[in-house]
Amino acid sequence: MEKDLLKDEELMMKRHSLSHVLAAAVQSIYGGVKFGIGPAIDNGCYYDFDLDASIAQEDYEKIEKKMQEIIASNLEFVCVEVSKKEAQELFKDQPYKLELINELEDGKITIYKLGDVFMDLCKGPHVENTKYLRSMAFSINRASGAYWRGNEKNKMMQRVYLFAFNSKDELKEYKRKLEDALKRDHNKLGRELGFFTTVDYIGQGLPILLPKGARVIQLLQRFVEDEEQKRGWLLTKTPFMAKNDLYKISGHWDHYKDGMFVLGDEEKDKEVFALRPMTCPFQFQAYLNKARSYRDLPLRYNETSTLFRNEDSGEMHGLIRVRQFTISEGHLMCAPDQVESEFKNCLELAVFMLKTLGLFEDSSYRFSVWDPENKEKYIGTEEQWNNAQNSMEKILKHLEIPYVVGVGEAAFYGPKLDIQIKNVFGKEDTLITIQIDQMLAEKFGMEYVDKDGSKKNPIIIHRTSIGCYERTLAYLIEKYAGAFPTWIAPTQVKVINIADAHLDYAKQVAEKLSSVGLRVELDDRNEKMGKKIREAQLDKIPYMLVVGDKEMESNSVSVRHRKNGDLGIKTIDEFIKDIKEVIDNRVID
Amino acid sequence: MEKDLLKDEELMMKRHSLSHVLAAAVQSIYGGVKFGIGPAIDNGCYYDFDLDASIAQEDYEKIEKKMQEIIASNLEFVCVEVSKKEAQELFKDQPYKLELINELEDGKITIYKLGDVFMDLCKGPHVENTKYLRSMAFSINRASGAYWRGNEKNKMMQRVYLFAFNSKDELKEYKRKLEDALKRDHNKLGRELGFFTTVDYIGQGLPILLPKGARVIQLLQRFVEDEEQKRGWLLTKTPFMAKNDLYKISGHWDHYKDGMFVLGDEEKDKEVFALRPMTCPFQFQAYLNKARSYRDLPLRYNETSTLFRNEDSGEMHGLIRVRQFTISEGHLMCAPDQVESEFKNCLELAVFMLKTLGLFEDSSYRFSVWDPENKEKYIGTEEQWNNAQNSMEKILKHLEIPYVVGVGEAAFYGPKLDIQIKNVFGKEDTLITIQIDQMLAEKFGMEYVDKDGSKKNPIIIHRTSIGCYERTLAYLIEKYAGAFPTWIAPTQVKVINIADAHLDYAKQVAEKLSSVGLRVELDDRNEKMGKKIREAQLDKIPYMLVVGDKEMESNSVSVRHRKNGDLGIKTIDEFIKDIKEVIDNRVID
Repeated sequence: MEKDLLKDEELMMKRHSLSHVLAAAVQSIYGGVKFGIGPAIDNGCYYDFDLDASIAQEDYEKIEKKMQEIIASNLEFVCVEVSKKEAQELFKDQPYKLELINELEDGKITIYKLGDVFMDLCKGPHVENTKYLRSMAFSINRASGAYWRGNEKNKMMQRVYLFAFNSKDELKEYKRKLEDALKRDHNKLGRELGFFTTVDYIGQGLPILLPKGARVIQLLQRFVEDEEQKRGWLLTKTPFMAKNDLYKISGHWDHYKDGMFVLGDEEKDKEVFALRPMTCPFQFQAYLNKARSYRDLPLRYNETSTLFRNEDSGEMHGLIRVRQFTISEGHLMCAPDQVESEFKNCLELAVFMLKTLGLFEDSSYRFSVWDPENKEKYIGTEEQWNNAQNSMEKILKHLEIPYVVGVGEAAFYGPKLDIQIKNVFGKEDTLITIQIDQMLAEKFGMEYVDKDGSKKNPIIIHRTSIGCYERTLAYLIEKYAGAFPTWIAPTQVKVINIADAHLDYAKQVAEKLSSVGLRVELDDRNEKMGKKIREAQLDKIPYMLVVGDKEMESNSVSVRHRKNGDLGIKTIDEFIKDIKEVIDNRVID
Repeated sequence: MEKDLLKDEELMMKRHSLSHVLAAAVQSIYGGVKFGIGPAIDNGCYYDFDLDASIAQEDYEKIEKKMQEIIASNLEFVCVEVSKKEAQELFKDQPYKLELINELEDGKITIYKLGDVFMDLCKGPHVENTKYLRSMAFSINRASGAYWRGNEKNKMMQRVYLFAFNSKDELKEYKRKLEDALKRDHNKLGRELGFFTTVDYIGQGLPILLPKGARVIQLLQRFVEDEEQKRGWLLTKTPFMAKNDLYKISGHWDHYKDGMFVLGDEEKDKEVFALRPMTCPFQFQAYLNKARSYRDLPLRYNETSTLFRNEDSGEMHGLIRVRQFTISEGHLMCAPDQVESEFKNCLELAVFMLKTLGLFEDSSYRFSVWDPENKEKYIGTEEQWNNAQNSMEKILKHLEIPYVVGVGEAAFYGPKLDIQIKNVFGKEDTLITIQIDQMLAEKFGMEYVDKDGSKKNPIIIHRTSIGCYERTLAYLIEKYAGAFPTWIAPTQVKVINIADAHLDYAKQVAEKLSSVGLRVELDDRNEKMGKKIREAQLDKIPYMLVVGDKEMESNSVSVRHRKNGDLGIKTIDEFIKDIKEVIDNRVID
């Protein structure tokens, strides 16, 4: 593990050194360049330049060649420590560097010289000599606009991205994977296959789920609701908005208002409403509807819940970053001695879901704790937070859950176990979350009468079992490149007649399959069989049933699977038996 | 039919005459009364009084007795025509009457004298003599506050309501029905049985569906979605809000803005959103996602859709008048020659739903047309409206649908067939609607290439198949007084063990039933069997399975039905077979 870390550090150092080489090459070719910054990133590095010329794709080769020349010259990277004043003098023609220097404290400011072809304000470290970069394989990926320091009020610079890896094979493999990822990208493939679309005049982050996408989400929701029902959860359906009075009790009004869509104005309107960003204070009302005793606990409520988050249009991305989403929410009220086993149940449910969908292997755990440097972001005292976090940590350790810690990633009312998942480009997001909350029950006056007759506040577990359906759909599209496992495929079977003479029989087959609950389409177009099969294959439909004379005579179908190819002739009943087994066992086929 | 109408008119005249008798009685008892108005209503009449004393329940008998005395005196109702000036003189001590007189044109103003005990400004007609009121049965229902002319800025008067019918039997029958209605009132019973609740700090018209209510709606939604799927509808899932740009295209911004929840301010914000009051412009996007040809038509999209209407808190009522609701929406694009058969399909689906739920007998049809006196409420020209309405009328006549006409009840974009339903108090609301729209396709640029290669706008049918789920739940609660048919009952079976010795067996029974998909609860409390049965009965659970020694030994259960009582001992498999038949056939049991 440690060895890998050292290797990683070495790679990042080489990438960073390459960014200086890139800067030197650009300066050498164009001249008069003003330099921004040039960090290493997880697939190479980039450098931001301000220059008159526009760096075009046809220039990439020239720049790469120049970089190879610099590397071949065995130039040394030399670190020099200077005073602030000296640094200001050295970079007097570099306005962006000067801006950075002005923000530094006086003292040891380091600059790195690359032979005599480039000099940079830089903390290092770097390789000692460019000869150590000779084995590196790199290529310019793209050049694009980037505001200086990411602020749109600043000047737009040109950012040149470099892919950089330890070997040609690694670079090739990375490019192959990236190409594959681009093909699987749900934001591209999901639109092409007709899962969803977006419309400018409706708005960013408000996707339209077309019949295929809506069907998958319907199937997922029913699967989750039914599994939760089996595990003792009680369904609720609560409103998507409330008066701000509610959010004042829950703390959302003070701690989350910027993330909410607010309807009305406190100064002008009799009633101000807000769309809900979370389900908790709504679902609590089911608990509050009756007096509760210890005998009622644990009390588990689930809901297929729609939430709204007011985020900037620029942050929206396909089905992953959206303004409105539907989520498998749940809140569970229990006594302190029930927390661990209930937490375990919630985790088991989440893992069951991920495994069933084939997403478990792409997931990892994050223990999200508060940020004690930013206490104003949270409700509760330091003592309460320490208690809550220690008790959650104990449970995680006891259940032997491997996690990383995310400081400042807690909810405002308590710590979380987040199940993280990476998209096809390696970007990580939270899919599932399980939270232990020792604070909100008191705020809402939620109580139960304990065995000894005293009134106590229950502990609340907030959890999702699969999380956000739109996001799950996105991961599934990417995971399976649109070829959904049969049990959850929008269309499971395509019936294809060879000629017009077989149309009536094809209809009978389709109706028969439909009548036993399969999702079937009939391709009755007057087209060649080969074309129909190709199109069904492109549409990622699991099973294609071809019917001609032979099949008609024997009351059977020729079965073709999108991945496994020809499965031979089966009677209709045999086919139904076989596909039902695949569906009932939720096989990833 | 005509005879009935005459009878109705006669009854209303008698009720109106009784309101004068009521006024005379109140004047005689209290003196110094200022009179408001006193119309007949559909269960009697009322009169608004302004007087210092408060009319209390213990005074009702006294008033009724005085009314009987007046009637027994055989007083004549005499109509007198006077000028405006004479009227002002006659009613100079009656400020409310003076206000009404001032608004009248000069000419024939009629007043009615009741013997010499009362005189009213009134259009009539009345019975000639109180002796014709002798057969009437009446009683004071209640006295409550009512603002003069319904305006809260005016003085609060005392309104006395009188039940009045042609005979004692009719009055008794009405009171019995009312008592029954009060028991069935979903707004009372639905809360008592734990179907829903409301919470002040969340807001009016935003009900919380508790597990029972949420379960029924889940079952209804799945039933509707599955039935629609079978009938060729394609599911969509579209966002609940959009930028106002969308509503400007659809016409909602100009014709429906007051009914919408708007997020943001056009003067201040970059983007203004609004929550959707209808699904149409969202679902249209699925059609617009591809180029369409006549071969694609009809194209039917369904959605379990949530809508929002910004109405006053005061107008909210239980689950029937709400600010947020979920509805079985659908939009169907078709060619002109497909409209009639598609309209028929939509109607058949709606009737199938109503019949399955047992609500068909309580429904009636209303053909909702525009109001040509208020053209600014609608889009389109008079010619377009006449075309659309004539074509819809033709279809309705052709399908032999009996309807009443609702002038001004059309949508702003076209005429509707509304399926009306009465609640337990006789108040009518729309449950289902089917609309023909020849206008919006053009606004949204929705086209198809016809056989001849020309581009045309499809005709759109907007429809619901069961309508609003919250409202449907309310009607079902009232219809069945909470005793839902087994297929849709939140809990279908309660297993009751006689003693602790039978607990394990009871658990086995419950698990077995649960494993075949039945919704089962086990009452394992240490209580007497009789009490457990009584409570399950009160909770309206269809089947109670009692298990004791005898049942344990024979692997059977004693079956009790909430309505049909003891059904004898059955093996578990027999019981499963029997209840499955009830469920699969959606028997109203």
